[in-house]
Amino acid sequence: MNPFLTKQRAVLKVYLLNEIERSKSYGWRYTEAIAARNADYQPTHSEIYKALHELTAEGIIKRHKQHVIEKGSGLSEVVLYSFTEDGYHKAQIYKLQVKNDLERSKRLIDSIIADNY
Amino acid sequence: MNPFLTKQRAVLKVYLLNEIERSKSYGWRYTEAIAARNADYQPTHSEIYKALHELTAEGIIKRHKQHVIEKGSGLSEVVLYSFTEDGYHKAQIYKLQVKNDLERSKRLIDSIIADNY
Repeated sequence: MNPFLTKQRAVLKVYLLNEIERSKSYGWRYTEAIAARNADYQPTHSEIYKALHELTAEGIIKRHKQHVIEKGSGLSEVVLYSFTEDGYHKAQIYKLQVKNDLERSKRLIDSIIADNY
Repeated sequence: MNPFLTKQRAVLKVYLLNEIERSKSYGWRYTEAIAARNADYQPTHSEIYKALHELTAEGIIKRHKQHVIEKGSGLSEVVLYSFTEDGYHKAQIYKLQVKNDLERSKRLIDSIIADNY
């Protein structure tokens, strides 16, 4: 079977890779960052963590723990993400693949509308 | 969470409703009919049957069995589908909902591309 429209997981991974390019950030901050960028796309924490897990398993990003002093709550441990040695290069290839797939999806939607309406 | 891109199941149901509007047909003929309409979208038999089952459970279409004489293989029983009494009306409403959702998906893809590339 040919693939259908682009999967949400792939899109989330692209948002995350772009966030990681901008700055190393705590896992839970990504949800806020992505939500702030697109009012029509509000992924859940759980979906974000699954996408981060996949990018880590694929060797594109790596986790490291750091202790931070949070105002009011004292010392706490947070998980930061950054690119692996060849992760940035892999990320650029992946982002291009997803862009091509998003464009394929738009063409597929156009042809579905032409077929049925 | 906001919905992501239009689900394949919804698109398949629209193709099927349009096929049923054209002619009552055997279950397995739908796969060929849909495949012939769109080279970029080739759903499997199994997906088609799930979509037919949902439309039947929703009271939009109904099944009826018929005996046909097939060349070479003699008498065989086939399952035909047609609209229920208010099925045609329900189908028009459903088709419009899916068209709106496909257009929402196109806009969402455009905003995802603008956010990330």
